[in-house]
Amino acid sequence: MYENNETKPVGTEDLKQHAVRVFAPATVANMICGFDVLGFAVDRPGDEVLMERVSRPGVRIRSIVGDQGRLPLDAEKNTVSASVALLLRHLNLQDEIGLEIDLTKHMPIGSGLGSSSASTVAGLVAANYLLGDPLSKQELMPFCVEGERLACGFGHADNVAPALMGGITLIRGYEPLDIIELPVPEELAAGIVFPQVDVPTRDARQLIRQHVPLKDAAQQWGNIAGLVAGLYRSDYDLIGRSMQDVLIEPTRAILIPEFYEMKRIAQDVGVLSFGISGSGPSVVAISKGIEAATRATDRIQEHLFTCGIDSLKYVSRVNRKGPILLE
Amino acid sequence: MYENNETKPVGTEDLKQHAVRVFAPATVANMICGFDVLGFAVDRPGDEVLMERVSRPGVRIRSIVGDQGRLPLDAEKNTVSASVALLLRHLNLQDEIGLEIDLTKHMPIGSGLGSSSASTVAGLVAANYLLGDPLSKQELMPFCVEGERLACGFGHADNVAPALMGGITLIRGYEPLDIIELPVPEELAAGIVFPQVDVPTRDARQLIRQHVPLKDAAQQWGNIAGLVAGLYRSDYDLIGRSMQDVLIEPTRAILIPEFYEMKRIAQDVGVLSFGISGSGPSVVAISKGIEAATRATDRIQEHLFTCGIDSLKYVSRVNRKGPILLE
Repeated sequence: MYENNETKPVGTEDLKQHAVRVFAPATVANMICGFDVLGFAVDRPGDEVLMERVSRPGVRIRSIVGDQGRLPLDAEKNTVSASVALLLRHLNLQDEIGLEIDLTKHMPIGSGLGSSSASTVAGLVAANYLLGDPLSKQELMPFCVEGERLACGFGHADNVAPALMGGITLIRGYEPLDIIELPVPEELAAGIVFPQVDVPTRDARQLIRQHVPLKDAAQQWGNIAGLVAGLYRSDYDLIGRSMQDVLIEPTRAILIPEFYEMKRIAQDVGVLSFGISGSGPSVVAISKGIEAATRATDRIQEHLFTCGIDSLKYVSRVNRKGPILLE
Repeated sequence: MYENNETKPVGTEDLKQHAVRVFAPATVANMICGFDVLGFAVDRPGDEVLMERVSRPGVRIRSIVGDQGRLPLDAEKNTVSASVALLLRHLNLQDEIGLEIDLTKHMPIGSGLGSSSASTVAGLVAANYLLGDPLSKQELMPFCVEGERLACGFGHADNVAPALMGGITLIRGYEPLDIIELPVPEELAAGIVFPQVDVPTRDARQLIRQHVPLKDAAQQWGNIAGLVAGLYRSDYDLIGRSMQDVLIEPTRAILIPEFYEMKRIAQDVGVLSFGISGSGPSVVAISKGIEAATRATDRIQEHLFTCGIDSLKYVSRVNRKGPILLE
């Protein structure tokens, strides 16, 4: 995708100092049984930020590609530029540093794959790099969360944390923010299908009941504890039987066409678990090895096609690296 | 306690074949943040069963010591004999085998320390031993759960599982029963104080709201996931900050005199966490090393004494062995 470097800025003698291109990965929030606290990164899709230092102070969006015109170019309203501006203010550099951004979205917006998080993380990592890495990843996290708040109205960290850290992350608590990196079993893979229907995060959240039966909540924390134990043991059976969501899925599945048929198809090909990615409508099949995830997404896409629903699919191992400097 | 063997049965040539004495440990259900799914065993207190094979078929309670007359001697009503009778029926030995039981309770009843579980587990392990160990520990579990149902009206496994397996156990799910043994960090210790007031399990359960805010439930599953990760990492800080209960403690604490003052005292001496053991009224201070737990229980007991409340205290490492054959 980046081999031709056709958008590489020219005319800068020391490119590394003046411009950087950063890719940040899509993420699967909740990891099926960990509503609001778990998430993991995938190798693809993801978003890409090209950031350039310029002499005129301030943060500006120069271009956005791949958003079908849905994202604001206004630097105060765009979460990428707005969160980078917060970082500059934190470092007291807002009157000194100028940064211009070309954002390339390689994934759909409103898909339940942490689209805004990937862009925000890519922007903040790029800015931090151009400033000489004054902050650690952990220190960048609050700015990522603030970007998420701007994008979604909620300062959740279950997408930004894995997008920034890579791997599987647990948000143990928010006050203060306490992010735990969990082990990633070697063969853990994810197949994602995005049925091209729109489910805005705000609506998907509002559907959820604000009170839940204690009995179901206790079942959910048995599952999340089982999942964490399974990750530490690389016990794929335990991982699979723990990734069940009795609380959120029944409500959110209403908004996703063919959800239960997709689930049946995924289970038939032998994935470990199947559920909703974030607030949907993307769905995720989690498997041991890439093959089962590939088979599941192929068959699900075929099924959706016969129902007249277009879809995108992505299959990869769980991403361990987080954001990557592309050049 | 057992050095003198003063109650050792005499007159049997092959003692091991005809009689056995088994100790099973007290347990701390919930482990503060894992309502109904987590529990751990302690070295003391615990209950003891002396079981003897006799020629007359059937299961009988010969004596109970230490129960202040509160437990039934009627074999059908006593959970120890009743669960052993179930085991015999399962093995189709009910018309063939005779077993007589002397039960010695070394811990208070209704204390929130898994008193009935310890007795039931000791009885089932003793019977299984005398029958030549036909069942594994995992296979004995359903009989332990059934004993718990007889004793408490609920077939919970969060006391019987650690009493039988030792260590820290997770009940991932009940259908089917899925018990996961979690790692026990070397220095993890527990100090228990039992204020001598009575809180029957049934009442303590009935106080709890049957619906909980989703926000609080999500905080709780962040905590339980953090605790499991902390146990695998032997990360005592993470263990400590994860063991918080925002859901159950506020309600159950109402039934426990001086709860918040005891908590303040425990926190002052630097324990990792402090909370209610099972349904109370026993409280537990969990610490790194035995010293902090000892200091906490000493000071709490002093404080209760000044309030006119008698108490018992027990300090030990987390028990890794489960039931022990004493001779």
